Amino acid sequence: MSSEETFDVIVVGAGCLGVASAFYLQKNSPDKRILLIDRTLAAGQANTAMSAAAVRNMFASSTNQLLTDTSIKYFEYVQKELGYDLFFEKTGYLWLLSDEQFNHESVKTWMERMDKSGISYKVYNKKELKEMIPGLNVDFSGDEEAELMNLQEVSYGLFGADCGVLDPTRLVEYYFEEFKKMSHVKPRFGVEVEKLLLEADPKLDLPGEPYVWQKKKVNGVITNKGTLRADVVVLAVGAWTNQLLDPIGIDSMTKGKKRQLFVIHAEDKKELLELLDVKGFNELNCIPFTILPSAGVYFRPQLQERGFWIGCGDKVGRAYKYIQTDEDMVPESAYYENNMYPVLSKYFPAFQSTRPVNSWAGGYNYSPDRIPFVYLECGVLVVNGASGSGIMKADALGRIADAVYRKEAEAELFGGKKIPSSTLSIKDRNVEVESVII
Amino acid sequence: MSSEETFDVIVVGAGCLGVASAFYLQKNSPDKRILLIDRTLAAGQANTAMSAAAVRNMFASSTNQLLTDTSIKYFEYVQKELGYDLFFEKTGYLWLLSDEQFNHESVKTWMERMDKSGISYKVYNKKELKEMIPGLNVDFSGDEEAELMNLQEVSYGLFGADCGVLDPTRLVEYYFEEFKKMSHVKPRFGVEVEKLLLEADPKLDLPGEPYVWQKKKVNGVITNKGTLRADVVVLAVGAWTNQLLDPIGIDSMTKGKKRQLFVIHAEDKKELLELLDVKGFNELNCIPFTILPSAGVYFRPQLQERGFWIGCGDKVGRAYKYIQTDEDMVPESAYYENNMYPVLSKYFPAFQSTRPVNSWAGGYNYSPDRIPFVYLECGVLVVNGASGSGIMKADALGRIADAVYRKEAEAELFGGKKIPSSTLSIKDRNVEVESVII
Repeated sequence: MSSEETFDVIVVGAGCLGVASAFYLQKNSPDKRILLIDRTLAAGQANTAMSAAAVRNMFASSTNQLLTDTSIKYFEYVQKELGYDLFFEKTGYLWLLSDEQFNHESVKTWMERMDKSGISYKVYNKKELKEMIPGLNVDFSGDEEAELMNLQEVSYGLFGADCGVLDPTRLVEYYFEEFKKMSHVKPRFGVEVEKLLLEADPKLDLPGEPYVWQKKKVNGVITNKGTLRADVVVLAVGAWTNQLLDPIGIDSMTKGKKRQLFVIHAEDKKELLELLDVKGFNELNCIPFTILPSAGVYFRPQLQERGFWIGCGDKVGRAYKYIQTDEDMVPESAYYENNMYPVLSKYFPAFQSTRPVNSWAGGYNYSPDRIPFVYLECGVLVVNGASGSGIMKADALGRIADAVYRKEAEAELFGGKKIPSSTLSIKDRNVEVESVII
Repeated sequence: MSSEETFDVIVVGAGCLGVASAFYLQKNSPDKRILLIDRTLAAGQANTAMSAAAVRNMFASSTNQLLTDTSIKYFEYVQKELGYDLFFEKTGYLWLLSDEQFNHESVKTWMERMDKSGISYKVYNKKELKEMIPGLNVDFSGDEEAELMNLQEVSYGLFGADCGVLDPTRLVEYYFEEFKKMSHVKPRFGVEVEKLLLEADPKLDLPGEPYVWQKKKVNGVITNKGTLRADVVVLAVGAWTNQLLDPIGIDSMTKGKKRQLFVIHAEDKKELLELLDVKGFNELNCIPFTILPSAGVYFRPQLQERGFWIGCGDKVGRAYKYIQTDEDMVPESAYYENNMYPVLSKYFPAFQSTRPVNSWAGGYNYSPDRIPFVYLECGVLVVNGASGSGIMKADALGRIADAVYRKEAEAELFGGKKIPSSTLSIKDRNVEVESVII
């Protein structure tokens, strides 16, 4: 490998957003030489692999609704029509809400906007929920612990049948393999970008360039394997974005947080198996992906493993991180026990005395409005800030990244709907703030 | 000093925003015990002292117009009516604009919004500018260097007569001395906050508190001089905010950049003295604070020193910083020579062959919309993100911080105008994006 190879495009990051972007860029610019690189040793091995990998179109902003709804429909198409199994299962999403939450202005807006966008959902009341999920505790009266823990009693369920779970590794493989079929350049792994190559445009070969009075452009990346040049660098590196954008003076406006998942097996416990096999919500006859009313705790059913993945949307008290560190990849053993378990076992006593058999951690990258960014500035095409829902937006974001690259005014999403290519930019951003994040 | 003293309020940071906040809080809550602390050894010695200390009401957002216009009028009141000399001098602000810039949509909007808000300004054409400032070069035709440097020819000047410069140390001293007269607690210096004391509310004295299911509140600060407790912690620490807010999981949404100022003396050079003593713009018979059309270069007249302070609004190419480091306080010797000087001397040949006699550097803290933040969350009252214009907004921001503290729906600014206290919050933010920052 020479130290100054040149490509048309370098896509940095082979996570879900990187591979989807690479796929659509190559598909629509078949002659371009597009190099995909990642610092890990395979595609989708960083935070994409750490995700709960649930997908939903139940967002409060019409932007996120559009990005997810079209992406999910594409995933269905890939699985059903192209026959590529993504392990996409329509478990549905079930938000358990207290009376106060259900009647909050933000939830009203959320439901109104879903109605308007044609996102289907159903409201269950307490009685219905109790009948469908016998193991759900909807009565905390007289429970002093629950009161001390600020737990809100379940009064309603908001259920979306078109939501579900998938295997993120399979999804990444799909885009990656399809990209490789078209690509002129073999993707490279174990290539770590140390910095973006910001240069004066045109270069005057003066010491200390670029100066403030010069135009500037990113002309490639400096990596642990040498300098790689390209007209455009696509940056799809999630929680590591600041490390690359800050030094060249572009504010990503995103910041990461550590998130953890803990695996509970149901096999040895009758009550947990009954919970897993709850009927009436979906054709799989399983409990949906379920969000509790308190403390940000949620779980996803894992049917192959016959168990649950338990997660928690940490808010105040969990540090924001400028960039992801190794520590953010290490789960905390006491976290399930002290934080999730007390909440989980109050709402679902079936979890009493459970201990995780596995756990992992990763980085979750927030944007200020919880809507992703896609924009091209100074030669860098940033695809970032998916705020915990990158997998479920991957297809739409890949298509938008491609439209931005080709300077198309609009991107066509799966199913034919169109979105202005500047919608997710910083400068011409035109989005509603997302209120339903987990 | 005991290791667990308790106050009603601790104000962290004795820069312009900290002292103005402390002043209004104490004024309107005379019985409260308010402790002001700073890690330096006196008030206003960090980035406030590093500022170009120019003040203007010429903003494009009505929010910034209101914040600055009322603050500047208060500064005038302090100087004229209270007899406290702030060295506030109405030099005016002069934006030199190219034809293209002047006719840009954003400048039209800027002027329209100033008209609407009653901000007075005047437009000069090229001929008028040339007559008033004989030393201004408005003709780059045939100048290949200017073309190579992307310099735009001056065609218009946008002048605001109510803008000017002041002495930030005097401004800080004013608020600080007035605060001390009312305060029950002596301010403390050399006190560095290591972290915010985030605790469970109520505390259950369990190991590892606070947990995700507990309410949380900042109950004070842990410093190099021990733990200090308070009901509310006011955080006015500018470019250091992330260091304190990120660990407790509050995203300040701000990020800093290094900025530098270089001092050029006019005394030895006739052409520079003539430029300094330009007539017709103000009663001081001096050149206004002047912003060049290209590369972000600007200068402020310094009448006491008979010279100029030269600055530059670094954009792409200057790193964003997560927190301010020592390196950000050190000016770069070649920066004037390679970056500012070539631009400055093209527009104003009087600067040819000049060398700085002094220089300094500091941190400039950006918010995403270039509008400040004032909000109370979990016991922390954040006053931050003034985006290079904290001094000129200090009075209004201090009043808003006080209104937020007292849970008043509106803050009354100087002159009687009111603003909803939630205007500058994150959750209920209601502002226009500011486009005119330097």
